[in-house]
Amino acid sequence: MPSPRDAYDDLMRRCREWTLLQSCSAVLGWDQQTMMPRGGAGLRGEQTALLATLVHDRMVDPALADLLADVGGSEVVADPESWEAADVRELTKTVERAAKLPRRLVEELAKTTTAGQEAWVLARQANDFARFRPHLESILKLKREEAAAVGFVGEPYDALLDEYEPGTTAADIDTIFTPLTAELVPLIRAVADSGRRPKPGILDRDFPIDRQKLFAEGAAAAIGFRFTEGRLDTAAHPFCSGIGPGDCRLTTRYNPRQFNEAFFGVLHEAGHGIYEQNLPAERYGAPSAAYCSLGIHESQSRLWENQIGRGEAFWTHFYPRLQQAFPGTLDDVTRDDLLFAINAVKPSFIRVEADEATYNLHIALRFELERAMLTGDLAVADLPGAWNDRFLALFGLAVPSDNQGCLQDVHWSFGGLGYFPTYTLGNLYAAQFRGAASKLPSVDEQIAAGNFAPLTSWLKEHIHRRGRRFRAAELCRRATGDGLKPESFTHDYLREKLSRFYGVC
Amino acid sequence: MPSPRDAYDDLMRRCREWTLLQSCSAVLGWDQQTMMPRGGAGLRGEQTALLATLVHDRMVDPALADLLADVGGSEVVADPESWEAADVRELTKTVERAAKLPRRLVEELAKTTTAGQEAWVLARQANDFARFRPHLESILKLKREEAAAVGFVGEPYDALLDEYEPGTTAADIDTIFTPLTAELVPLIRAVADSGRRPKPGILDRDFPIDRQKLFAEGAAAAIGFRFTEGRLDTAAHPFCSGIGPGDCRLTTRYNPRQFNEAFFGVLHEAGHGIYEQNLPAERYGAPSAAYCSLGIHESQSRLWENQIGRGEAFWTHFYPRLQQAFPGTLDDVTRDDLLFAINAVKPSFIRVEADEATYNLHIALRFELERAMLTGDLAVADLPGAWNDRFLALFGLAVPSDNQGCLQDVHWSFGGLGYFPTYTLGNLYAAQFRGAASKLPSVDEQIAAGNFAPLTSWLKEHIHRRGRRFRAAELCRRATGDGLKPESFTHDYLREKLSRFYGVC
Repeated sequence: MPSPRDAYDDLMRRCREWTLLQSCSAVLGWDQQTMMPRGGAGLRGEQTALLATLVHDRMVDPALADLLADVGGSEVVADPESWEAADVRELTKTVERAAKLPRRLVEELAKTTTAGQEAWVLARQANDFARFRPHLESILKLKREEAAAVGFVGEPYDALLDEYEPGTTAADIDTIFTPLTAELVPLIRAVADSGRRPKPGILDRDFPIDRQKLFAEGAAAAIGFRFTEGRLDTAAHPFCSGIGPGDCRLTTRYNPRQFNEAFFGVLHEAGHGIYEQNLPAERYGAPSAAYCSLGIHESQSRLWENQIGRGEAFWTHFYPRLQQAFPGTLDDVTRDDLLFAINAVKPSFIRVEADEATYNLHIALRFELERAMLTGDLAVADLPGAWNDRFLALFGLAVPSDNQGCLQDVHWSFGGLGYFPTYTLGNLYAAQFRGAASKLPSVDEQIAAGNFAPLTSWLKEHIHRRGRRFRAAELCRRATGDGLKPESFTHDYLREKLSRFYGVC
Repeated sequence: MPSPRDAYDDLMRRCREWTLLQSCSAVLGWDQQTMMPRGGAGLRGEQTALLATLVHDRMVDPALADLLADVGGSEVVADPESWEAADVRELTKTVERAAKLPRRLVEELAKTTTAGQEAWVLARQANDFARFRPHLESILKLKREEAAAVGFVGEPYDALLDEYEPGTTAADIDTIFTPLTAELVPLIRAVADSGRRPKPGILDRDFPIDRQKLFAEGAAAAIGFRFTEGRLDTAAHPFCSGIGPGDCRLTTRYNPRQFNEAFFGVLHEAGHGIYEQNLPAERYGAPSAAYCSLGIHESQSRLWENQIGRGEAFWTHFYPRLQQAFPGTLDDVTRDDLLFAINAVKPSFIRVEADEATYNLHIALRFELERAMLTGDLAVADLPGAWNDRFLALFGLAVPSDNQGCLQDVHWSFGGLGYFPTYTLGNLYAAQFRGAASKLPSVDEQIAAGNFAPLTSWLKEHIHRRGRRFRAAELCRRATGDGLKPESFTHDYLREKLSRFYGVC
């Protein structure tokens, strides 16, 4: 029998190997969405499926249980708050989950979702849900199998959500989303009824794409994204891929008439990227060195995209630079005109272009529908109708076409059911972190002067460098003194902002 | 004991798995040279090393020898010219070679050459051989170990060359290169002494890079490269990466004052790419489905780059299109002016920019030096001096700096010792294939009319679709009726051309 320390080291060596295999998959995944010629889809599916099974084989190696038993209860994990204890806690969870998933299912999921993503791109382009429907049906069937194999107490959704937001259930999400939706719907109506509007036409101008890219890269670098260890490309559905230490890649898409679409998209992805770049690289491969949860990950993107990036201090620094980047284009626009325009609240169809208030209704809608598809209460064939009905009820708008409705997001095509709620959790966590960090002396003055280091340092110390050492609730408590408090978002942040721009509260 | 057919199928399944792993490495390698941020080098080295060891583990699995024994002598391989027999022949060779390489050496080679490539890029940029020297020393030490482990009859070089040009030895290359060099040196001197020169300044004009890219892509597509299954990017050292069926990627580098540098580079890489795209994809993963040898691979690039791409028929079609692509730029230049300019023979420092005659002297130089480094007759520290001395002797030119001398090529940095001779073999094979194909009715008239299909079809049938079913010598015999005849290049092709432009013969 190896010593507990030797067993722990052996486990970490194994984790590093499968983390490296996952990082190879990450490169392939990034490539698939940014560079790969269409003809490469079949091969890519086989490559991805093979790597997934190699990872799975390693996670279900029976030696892991023995090694975990050798470490468990030993001096290596005596301190329950140590990195080592977190490694063992997270690895145990991973191993137990993997052991429940048959190799065949892992392989089928990889192949099916690779094909699904290709089909989704085409279906979205062609605005043709029928092309995507059989793929979504196959994915849903496999995800239900996955949930059944993993097991759950409440409902199938829980087994999938747990992968993204460990320890959280559909019922927990309901408890947060139901009052949030109830609060947001009348608030958004009050905004519409206020009669106040930003000046029209401020954002709808010619913004050459090459200049948009330079300006966005400059802002991402200013807030702390290191381009020597990253890059920015174009993709149909923007994402951030943290491939591993020293390599993190952002993507966006450009609208030549609306600089704000790509700009806030880049701030968002850069928020993810800064988190990835500041994870504890010296522990790379250890389970505790991963990001905490997707909700926490999203808090980092939301914080920069919205809570900092749409704030007065941010634009005090960046507005003259924006005017310089597009000479003459914004001569008639003041900083405050711009601030109102980029903080306008208005129901619209596309989630990634939504404002901060209505955004959470987009998520609530997706949560309801994917939950219903998983239980079987909603058939895939009925998805477009259900989407459009519920959209009308929440937003007061009739969806004109599926590519502005249920075809707009990539997530279901890659099997990411249970993923969406983490976006709203991110909004809520972000407000709470921002609130805690704002107690630092002169953070806003520093930002207005273009110095983002105090805030970035606080985030690095309290969030990024902690990796997965603590679960999200504990991380939040240590960073802010409290568990998740949705009112940090609704009351302290959103109502304050809407009161300023729209006079509603 | 499995039936011979079952054993064969099992072997092919295993080959497909490691071919897929190699295809993942190919994506990582392409990415490293085109997209990867500098900071990702450390991680990339680990990823590449891990994939290399996974491939190696599979190739040294003792079960392979048993399965090969089950197939050997059975009805599956009864026809020695069948695909199945070729699979078993090639697999036996691969397995025997892999068995001789210790896992540690494979891993070290992968890591060392990944670091070596990064160091080479920086050393070349900085024109600082000292930065690359310790890397090359490490690589050389490992390659000598590799040669010793694999074994050889003549000299260490043979063991490395065999990987690129199966069955060929350094002595074989000597037998070809010594008379070739002896013939070329006076021929090139006679060209210089002829006093004839192309009109000056024809190629040195403003050629915007975006237009260069469009024109080169158009030509690559016209000769048969399928962009739905490929792409073209920029890289410090141009290459073609055949990732697998449906995914083949070309790279080039642009000079905004010399359209011909990137253009012929793209034709060259497209020649490789067309070969890759027409390999028997239905047998993907089987050893017989790979390219025949690097010399044959290079024959395809050279044929399009030089023997077609610098020919009169080609420019009868493309010259008006070139003039259109760069409006006004070439108004004072006739097709024949251009033809002379792109066929000019003139000693110069950079191999990839060399003309067809002096090119083979560049290769002869590298062959001599890498052979001497492997035997130990030449120390790495003495490489720049030896390079410059020999260059002066062959070309009559003094090398002004190492980045125009021994630092110009990527090959040694990735461990590709023994690779260079295949370039000249490619020139020789290309001339012989071109000669055979030119017996087709009206091939030149078709090319002049922009119809490349007759030639491409001949190549597809006689070269591409045959994969590795036959060794290079046999492939050449089947396609042309003869083994390799260097005089197809020197006499039938080069002297004919030099006579036309320079009046020498």
